[in-house]
Amino acid sequence: MAGSTFGTAFRLTTFGESHGGGLGVIVDGCPSGLFLTEEMVQEYLDRRAPGKRSFATTRKEGDRVRILSGVFEGRTEGTPVAMLVENTDARSGDYSALAHVFRPGHADYTYTEKYGFRDYRGGGRSSGRETLGRVAGGAVAACFLKELGITVTAYTLSIGEVKCDPASFDMAERDRNDLAMPDKGAAAKAGEYLKALQEKGDSAGGIIECVIRSLPAGLGEPVFDKLDAELSKAMLSIGAVKGFEAGDGFRAAENTGSANNDGFYISEGQVKKSTNHSGGVLGGISDGSEVIFRVAVKPTPSVSLPQKTVNDEGEETELIIGGRHDSVIVPRAVVVAECMAAAVTADMLLRNMGARLKDIRRFYGC
Amino acid sequence: MAGSTFGTAFRLTTFGESHGGGLGVIVDGCPSGLFLTEEMVQEYLDRRAPGKRSFATTRKEGDRVRILSGVFEGRTEGTPVAMLVENTDARSGDYSALAHVFRPGHADYTYTEKYGFRDYRGGGRSSGRETLGRVAGGAVAACFLKELGITVTAYTLSIGEVKCDPASFDMAERDRNDLAMPDKGAAAKAGEYLKALQEKGDSAGGIIECVIRSLPAGLGEPVFDKLDAELSKAMLSIGAVKGFEAGDGFRAAENTGSANNDGFYISEGQVKKSTNHSGGVLGGISDGSEVIFRVAVKPTPSVSLPQKTVNDEGEETELIIGGRHDSVIVPRAVVVAECMAAAVTADMLLRNMGARLKDIRRFYGC
Amino acid sequence: MAGSTFGTAFRLTTFGESHGGGLGVIVDGCPSGLFLTEEMVQEYLDRRAPGKRSFATTRKEGDRVRILSGVFEGRTEGTPVAMLVENTDARSGDYSALAHVFRPGHADYTYTEKYGFRDYRGGGRSSGRETLGRVAGGAVAACFLKELGITVTAYTLSIGEVKCDPASFDMAERDRNDLAMPDKGAAAKAGEYLKALQEKGDSAGGIIECVIRSLPAGLGEPVFDKLDAELSKAMLSIGAVKGFEAGDGFRAAENTGSANNDGFYISEGQVKKSTNHSGGVLGGISDGSEVIFRVAVKPTPSVSLPQKTVNDEGEETELIIGGRHDSVIVPRAVVVAECMAAAVTADMLLRNMGARLKDIRRFYGC
Amino acid sequence: MAGSTFGTAFRLTTFGESHGGGLGVIVDGCPSGLFLTEEMVQEYLDRRAPGKRSFATTRKEGDRVRILSGVFEGRTEGTPVAMLVENTDARSGDYSALAHVFRPGHADYTYTEKYGFRDYRGGGRSSGRETLGRVAGGAVAACFLKELGITVTAYTLSIGEVKCDPASFDMAERDRNDLAMPDKGAAAKAGEYLKALQEKGDSAGGIIECVIRSLPAGLGEPVFDKLDAELSKAMLSIGAVKGFEAGDGFRAAENTGSANNDGFYISEGQVKKSTNHSGGVLGGISDGSEVIFRVAVKPTPSVSLPQKTVNDEGEETELIIGGRHDSVIVPRAVVVAECMAAAVTADMLLRNMGARLKDIRRFYGC
Repeated sequence: MAGSTFGTAFRLTTFGESHGGGLGVIVDGCPSGLFLTEEMVQEYLDRRAPGKRSFATTRKEGDRVRILSGVFEGRTEGTPVAMLVENTDARSGDYSALAHVFRPGHADYTYTEKYGFRDYRGGGRSSGRETLGRVAGGAVAACFLKELGITVTAYTLSIGEVKCDPASFDMAERDRNDLAMPDKGAAAKAGEYLKALQEKGDSAGGIIECVIRSLPAGLGEPVFDKLDAELSKAMLSIGAVKGFEAGDGFRAAENTGSANNDGFYISEGQVKKSTNHSGGVLGGISDGSEVIFRVAVKPTPSVSLPQKTVNDEGEETELIIGGRHDSVIVPRAVVVAECMAAAVTADMLLRNMGARLKDIRRFYGC
Repeated sequence: MAGSTFGTAFRLTTFGESHGGGLGVIVDGCPSGLFLTEEMVQEYLDRRAPGKRSFATTRKEGDRVRILSGVFEGRTEGTPVAMLVENTDARSGDYSALAHVFRPGHADYTYTEKYGFRDYRGGGRSSGRETLGRVAGGAVAACFLKELGITVTAYTLSIGEVKCDPASFDMAERDRNDLAMPDKGAAAKAGEYLKALQEKGDSAGGIIECVIRSLPAGLGEPVFDKLDAELSKAMLSIGAVKGFEAGDGFRAAENTGSANNDGFYISEGQVKKSTNHSGGVLGGISDGSEVIFRVAVKPTPSVSLPQKTVNDEGEETELIIGGRHDSVIVPRAVVVAECMAAAVTADMLLRNMGARLKDIRRFYGC
Repeated sequence: MAGSTFGTAFRLTTFGESHGGGLGVIVDGCPSGLFLTEEMVQEYLDRRAPGKRSFATTRKEGDRVRILSGVFEGRTEGTPVAMLVENTDARSGDYSALAHVFRPGHADYTYTEKYGFRDYRGGGRSSGRETLGRVAGGAVAACFLKELGITVTAYTLSIGEVKCDPASFDMAERDRNDLAMPDKGAAAKAGEYLKALQEKGDSAGGIIECVIRSLPAGLGEPVFDKLDAELSKAMLSIGAVKGFEAGDGFRAAENTGSANNDGFYISEGQVKKSTNHSGGVLGGISDGSEVIFRVAVKPTPSVSLPQKTVNDEGEETELIIGGRHDSVIVPRAVVVAECMAAAVTADMLLRNMGARLKDIRRFYGC
Repeated sequence: MAGSTFGTAFRLTTFGESHGGGLGVIVDGCPSGLFLTEEMVQEYLDRRAPGKRSFATTRKEGDRVRILSGVFEGRTEGTPVAMLVENTDARSGDYSALAHVFRPGHADYTYTEKYGFRDYRGGGRSSGRETLGRVAGGAVAACFLKELGITVTAYTLSIGEVKCDPASFDMAERDRNDLAMPDKGAAAKAGEYLKALQEKGDSAGGIIECVIRSLPAGLGEPVFDKLDAELSKAMLSIGAVKGFEAGDGFRAAENTGSANNDGFYISEGQVKKSTNHSGGVLGGISDGSEVIFRVAVKPTPSVSLPQKTVNDEGEETELIIGGRHDSVIVPRAVVVAECMAAAVTADMLLRNMGARLKDIRRFYGC
């Protein structure tokens, strides 16, 4: 059943396989009057492009986005913003060897079980290219949020066991190194680790951290559509993501209530929290402090070491995957997480507008 | 905006505050012909009841469910199953001291920011009693799944730093001890830990683990409504939950691809996996092995130690919470997680039915 | 699949059969701060009560509503407003004769085909009593609209071929006569017509007209969720409704463009229309004039004349329906149409709030 | 708020304005294994093309569809089918005269009120070209239905007061004349009527009838998502549609119960109805007979006679619309109604699959 739409008020519907005509998104519910150009979206797509990162596939994707609708004279019209990235680097031949075998850690087997057959070219819909639609759509959300002074920033927190040191955080560094790590030293160490893995034909995973700043208090819809519940779904919906935690997350489970509670105080007439163990969310509603969460990404399943598997005839076989693959997905997934978080935030901002009769009266001037 | 509905095909809509007339749920989309009685639902509600657990509030809730609709001659009719638990133990007076102060770690502040005022009696909608509707609704899902041979089982994996040892797992033990732990030794140790905390007026968190067995391969809707994405949202939508991980989760982030991939093999003509690092999900679709995930629960925010906070006049104050509170939420949340997981699974089973033209033809006999 | 929820931002989920514990609704998405009492809802329920109308069933339903949640100190909390009407007049015995036979014009056959069996007591979920949840929920919407100065008014326009004369419209008269007709003369004539039918054991249909006043321009969501499209669905979802038309409706199909277009002019600085053939909607969006539409209601299918039909053994049989039945549904359906129209309008008001970036900026003060 | 998605299980999300990059649709939820080519979709698009019809605009649209995703080796994959029709005939200059004036009967005024400004080129999103996405998406639904032996057929029933005579119906004739009328004589008469109007610079409306054949009983979801309620919304969501009636519709309102009820009988072991006043729907659920409904279409608002209106400066003005316009929309709207009806039917077929536990057990083999 239909599962390619995300969000309620600000809504992404994506399409596309790694091969075929192209991939893209319809952004429905984007408010009118937002300044938007293809360049603004392209900037986000370029951050997920593999070309410039040394631990990423060497395919030159060069994905260029085209806005097909919803923008007139440089402004969004309030109508759906459709965007298309055409597939250009479609060497289908590369994949014929994989047509009948199920790659471990990939969705080949499950797509076949679900749909009866599958597009074996590059993973089809389960390919990492599927995220192009998410990024293009989330980029529109991010542009909308910026107009309200809200920013969403994700980065690589760790690769394998190599972790950034919060004491050394430098966000400018994130955009300088290949690994999207905001810590130069950690990036160097992680680079060594990856190089060693790459030589063995193996791969690594890691953790992405994301921070949403300047979010007003009050966002999130009780009881099922909590802000952190929607963020969690958004993150787990990204391929290869295996975990999500808000604020202290799993560490909170080992803490005591007295230490984990964030005390309130008053600063310049505003309610503030002295700590932020909660990650900016209380009862599923933003509390006005930074929203912070982490996302666990599994190691790239495409390794070139021999693997035991089966084919679609029900026979056991051994598989060695050739071709061009990322030895770590994390750095390219950073912008995907950031864009999905922006989409959730935009949705929650719009959904919150009808919460109080008083505000509705003020809105309609009656 | 409306946020009290969960699911698409199998759908829960809950209502109710800790005080007021009552709490409950409408289950819409439940198939017709399912044998269902109030006793079958009550059994689940009793598992979240505090009375019998020594580390839980001593309020005698005695919540009795009443099926209002949707069942005729012992069978579901295909129409909405509405269930009501009336509030009986409503000592509103207990809460008047909290009417104007924001409890740290609770949703008092955020509900007030969102809605302009709040029901200060026992947390209102953000109370743990809100889960009554989830459990009643999820119990119907669990009964439906049992008819298909599918089981969902949750238990306390750890409390604070005291963890069950998988080598000592005994699921019958789960229902014997106060902490819903399937390991007698761990339960004893955790009991000591809690007693010590309780004496100090403090509280603990913990981790819940949940296993779904006998799930067919193919469930989960690409790309946003992945099985694990829906499970993740379901879990994070439960109050006090701060994290979710499927399969190896955050540990996978530190592993290598070659070690993390689950190899396929053939056993009795069936495709099987030699390991289950993925937690039963590949590409967001069930792979026929056990679906397994973990949920991080923060420590109970109601501690009786003094806390710094502010009131709704914008003044700083100190708060000491009296009254009856759980020193750990985890054991009572186990059945909530189990029921939400059942609701997701039922939903995904129904949503999957239209995946293939061939099956639809067979279904309609044309 | 789940079909008991209506609306997106302002959302009704109803439950209940004519027999069983009760019927009701959860209103989710109602803004906080609305003054709401059981009496305010009861007023609407009383308008659909049969007791006081001479052409209606003589069953004393005396349906009393109880608000179970979502209201605190007389104001809505922003949380779900659940309402329950318990079934009290459940003489199930009356219906046993109908347990195995399909009543023509009723849903007995189709429910059996869909669900495998049916609740034969009084029509079960397809009973007119199902509208209790709609009316209770729509009453909340109407109360919300009144706060914004918006009114929704429905009335019986015709019964059989007896039509009210717009020249004689007197809305106070609507609440004085048994037929909810705003024209005393027409009501008298229709009364005669019904009496004659009743004596023969037959029944009549009719047309309901509904007007929404003081609606701001701009409501309705292109392209599928047009204001009139949502109204149309709302009306056709009411049992026994067979048609909907907005503005001139079917008459427009015979008109010419030059005569059917409504010219614009300026009055006191405001854009006005010189006519209202469009019924207050252009391109699916409210144009600031009165929204007006009509609804065709079929004659009550429960007639006491003998009818040819079949039973669930596949045998032909003749049926004579005894018991208490309305000889015309229209007057009691007036408040149902009004309430559903209010629900649509409330939903559209909330959905419109995110249309413009400028307004969102103003809303959030950033 | 997002309003460009239609359907629940089989879901269309459309995009595009009359000018700009292009228009199209994402079909999500289409089952895998359906044979589908661009030619199959193009056939439907050609039926809405204006070129070959003499009473239609003489713009050569030549709209060619391109399938961007979701089809592999000629079969649908179960993933979203995205389709694009690029805008080629974009003479924006034609429309500059209309940039600041509100055309009567069009959505110029209401879009401006809603969004603050509007794309004045050819009506933007409110243009008739918007239906390209509907037709492409509905064509996929129609192809799916054909695989199950279900057909959806729409035609022009009347233009102005000229009505087809059911006694002369010849469906092959529908595709031979310019007016999509299945009655050669009526088509000739309507042609004369239109020619006379065209000479005066005026336009006509009409009625479309649509029949769905071989639909199994049991489709439609109580209580809000009734089959006829969804059809009604689908039809009213089409621009220029002002009314909907199922079966006898508004005529039923004047009938008596005894005459309007359809008696049941048995034929070859099957339950049949002796008449079909209900239009194939009872209680919102298909009853196994033909589903039949009618749709009222208003006259083309673009007339070349002078009209009184206002501009966006709030000044009154007179408008004479030049350019190329259909003097009647109905014949081109026939395929739009047919495709939207197919989309509803496909959705309802899929939504019905989870209705009974027994069938679900059979489906999953457990």
